[in-house]
Amino acid sequence: MKLTHLDKNNRAKMVDVSNKQDSIRVAKASGTIKMSQEAYETINANQAKKGPVLQTAVIAAIMGAKKTGDLIPMCHPLMLSSIDCDIAKLDNLPGFRLEVTAKLIGKTGVEMEALMGVSIGLLTIYDMIKAIDKSMIISDIKLISKQGGKSGNYTAM
Amino acid sequence: MKLTHLDKNNRAKMVDVSNKQDSIRVAKASGTIKMSQEAYETINANQAKKGPVLQTAVIAAIMGAKKTGDLIPMCHPLMLSSIDCDIAKLDNLPGFRLEVTAKLIGKTGVEMEALMGVSIGLLTIYDMIKAIDKSMIISDIKLISKQGGKSGNYTAM
Amino acid sequence: MKLTHLDKNNRAKMVDVSNKQDSIRVAKASGTIKMSQEAYETINANQAKKGPVLQTAVIAAIMGAKKTGDLIPMCHPLMLSSIDCDIAKLDNLPGFRLEVTAKLIGKTGVEMEALMGVSIGLLTIYDMIKAIDKSMIISDIKLISKQGGKSGNYTAM
Amino acid sequence: MKLTHLDKNNRAKMVDVSNKQDSIRVAKASGTIKMSQEAYETINANQAKKGPVLQTAVIAAIMGAKKTGDLIPMCHPLMLSSIDCDIAKLDNLPGFRLEVTAKLIGKTGVEMEALMGVSIGLLTIYDMIKAIDKSMIISDIKLISKQGGKSGNYTAM
Amino acid sequence: MKLTHLDKNNRAKMVDVSNKQDSIRVAKASGTIKMSQEAYETINANQAKKGPVLQTAVIAAIMGAKKTGDLIPMCHPLMLSSIDCDIAKLDNLPGFRLEVTAKLIGKTGVEMEALMGVSIGLLTIYDMIKAIDKSMIISDIKLISKQGGKSGNYTAM
Amino acid sequence: MKLTHLDKNNRAKMVDVSNKQDSIRVAKASGTIKMSQEAYETINANQAKKGPVLQTAVIAAIMGAKKTGDLIPMCHPLMLSSIDCDIAKLDNLPGFRLEVTAKLIGKTGVEMEALMGVSIGLLTIYDMIKAIDKSMIISDIKLISKQGGKSGNYTAM
Repeated sequence: MKLTHLDKNNRAKMVDVSNKQDSIRVAKASGTIKMSQEAYETINANQAKKGPVLQTAVIAAIMGAKKTGDLIPMCHPLMLSSIDCDIAKLDNLPGFRLEVTAKLIGKTGVEMEALMGVSIGLLTIYDMIKAIDKSMIISDIKLISKQGGKSGNYTAM
Repeated sequence: MKLTHLDKNNRAKMVDVSNKQDSIRVAKASGTIKMSQEAYETINANQAKKGPVLQTAVIAAIMGAKKTGDLIPMCHPLMLSSIDCDIAKLDNLPGFRLEVTAKLIGKTGVEMEALMGVSIGLLTIYDMIKAIDKSMIISDIKLISKQGGKSGNYTAM
Repeated sequence: MKLTHLDKNNRAKMVDVSNKQDSIRVAKASGTIKMSQEAYETINANQAKKGPVLQTAVIAAIMGAKKTGDLIPMCHPLMLSSIDCDIAKLDNLPGFRLEVTAKLIGKTGVEMEALMGVSIGLLTIYDMIKAIDKSMIISDIKLISKQGGKSGNYTAM
Repeated sequence: MKLTHLDKNNRAKMVDVSNKQDSIRVAKASGTIKMSQEAYETINANQAKKGPVLQTAVIAAIMGAKKTGDLIPMCHPLMLSSIDCDIAKLDNLPGFRLEVTAKLIGKTGVEMEALMGVSIGLLTIYDMIKAIDKSMIISDIKLISKQGGKSGNYTAM
Repeated sequence: MKLTHLDKNNRAKMVDVSNKQDSIRVAKASGTIKMSQEAYETINANQAKKGPVLQTAVIAAIMGAKKTGDLIPMCHPLMLSSIDCDIAKLDNLPGFRLEVTAKLIGKTGVEMEALMGVSIGLLTIYDMIKAIDKSMIISDIKLISKQGGKSGNYTAM
Repeated sequence: MKLTHLDKNNRAKMVDVSNKQDSIRVAKASGTIKMSQEAYETINANQAKKGPVLQTAVIAAIMGAKKTGDLIPMCHPLMLSSIDCDIAKLDNLPGFRLEVTAKLIGKTGVEMEALMGVSIGLLTIYDMIKAIDKSMIISDIKLISKQGGKSGNYTAM
């Protein structure tokens, strides 16, 4: 029986990486959350009702990065070998910048894992402090750099 | 044996909502993804290598919203009664705006679910098209409005 | 800013059940797996290499039914109040028939949960015994009956 | 202290594959869903209430295949390197045939992943169209072929 | 077709709670982890290589409690309305005691959720500090008290 | 822009194992559950209301071990190549001892996977029999031995 293929334009697939070489892959992504002065000070004074905001956000970012293959439909499941986070206080925004670095020795890049970590971490900050400020805005989620893989290195301008 | 409590400032908790009333909760959130003209046109021509981008993003947004309680550490697990998405083409960005509306009859708001749907949906667009453009930027993720609950209604200015 | 809606035909959504009444919902589904005589006898003699086949299948069916909302994109997350399985030996097939009954007091039916339980249970039988027979066939997965909800009762003919 | 082992026949285990060689593994599985003429036409006209049926099914099949190790108790967790789906329209059934091909470079076969993708994809079709037809039947879920591994190649007759 | 039931003794099931009344359910559980003096001091000095141990354990306990229905085969999926943790320093053990309180308004008790939170939290402490001490022992995981439900209140002696 | 790093003592991270060698890792862990004579006899007579207790516990232990990377925040996701369980009847406790052995060819140890399997398995026993005895105590969860990796072999005294 011959299959009547769906139109190629309408068929989702997880791209075949079987023949790619294992190599070290590193991706760094970042994003920001802007908030009211009151919310910002509450976090820095470590007095949010739900608990310590930034530590919780870092843990959520790491756990979220590990779940990327579950959440992004066409992402390959991966075994990250390292996830590292940094948070910068941005007094002038005011708000925070979260940066996540993911590493893997494997066949596909880890850009999505780094971006997922940033997104989940920033959403966690939103959740922990939303009783004080509902108008927070998450922005500027982007890839900072990647190394490894056939497409080579990349650094955001 | 008496417990030596952790300092109240350093103890995370899932806030007690046992005594809150069930009511209809609605939250609407949105966010944007900015990309190159080439990436934008590839999506609109429905010719991305991994499959149909916008439909995949909508499905990922809905499935991601359902996983909010797994991903955000202090979020209550919820049984959403409705999730609805819209995507707007923004020719001038160029890029797309994703809007997610979540509903629940329950004791807690669904802001995080709507924001999670937006984030996962936009990340899915990034994933499906990143072979063409790695410099895409996800921005302006925010709550548009919420109804229901003790804190009342909210509309972003 | 006005949204340019995706064509209604191309937009997935989780249907709004907010205004539906809570009622008792019951759904019963079943399916079969056909196998070689040798595979059938190995299961009945409880001598499969991976362990006790039918008990493992029942447990997998129950755990799988609980994950329906994670697996079927537009399914509502539900809190099942009961899951019950039966397995019939079908000497003439030869093979087994798995029947799963799911219950809920809620706003949506539990047909998918019962069907998911049947599917995961039968796949588990396949997995446990595939070293002996790779040509097993899973068939006849269907809804046997449902009660409750606006659309009323249903019994398969 | 000596362990009183459970009877070998009653102890489930995840079989040890530590000493197996990594090799390319490919598995292809398929299955069908039979439905009423009305349901069939609704899908082909892309007018189902929950959204585009076939695309949603393909995405669910891919995401479901990735979760096989979570759902089937004795399956090894795997890192699939490719998942590809095809759907055939079967006017005479009427209904659809879903075929899923999974690939991996690893120590165990990917038959279960292909079969899981087929099952979840077909259940998703059921879910998206069940408001029109509750009597749909999922059948003929089977392995079409596999390559790689110690047990060699297999093709269904 | 009549089903040949599995022997009642060999059939797992998720017990039917459909007819139980919703009521407030509270369960409190606790457990301890005993470790070397060096490991104990490293945690209290907040100098573990993987990060802040006790806060991470509390977050893991809360997230783990929410996943009880996924992990314990016959547990009902639940929507916890509150999870609260305390950690006591036990200088004489030396080690820590973790106490988790879970609440729900629903049809089943939350003992397993409290016990799961304790287990996952203590395992997280083990993980964060195992580079220093592999001989840590987790003990005395038990239910402290429960309120609500047909079987009434319970307090451990 | 320079990042204002969080204090090193307060930043969680998933430790970088990218440069570690793949090797065979084995870890064996165990733990006990103590219960009333009545509960003990009910399990041994295989008459618990929720189904066969020990087989269900073994399956839950195996499935739980596979989820370690989801549950323990700083654990690497792993692809276990083997999980094996034994249960000993301890007439004098009375109760049971569960032992779980996990294997992997990879860059990190599998101690946490073995300990997680033990914990989830024992909690499953608790769940299946708690209608009879709420005072059961889970104790003595510890690593029995590990092989492989830079830190070498370990055997509990």
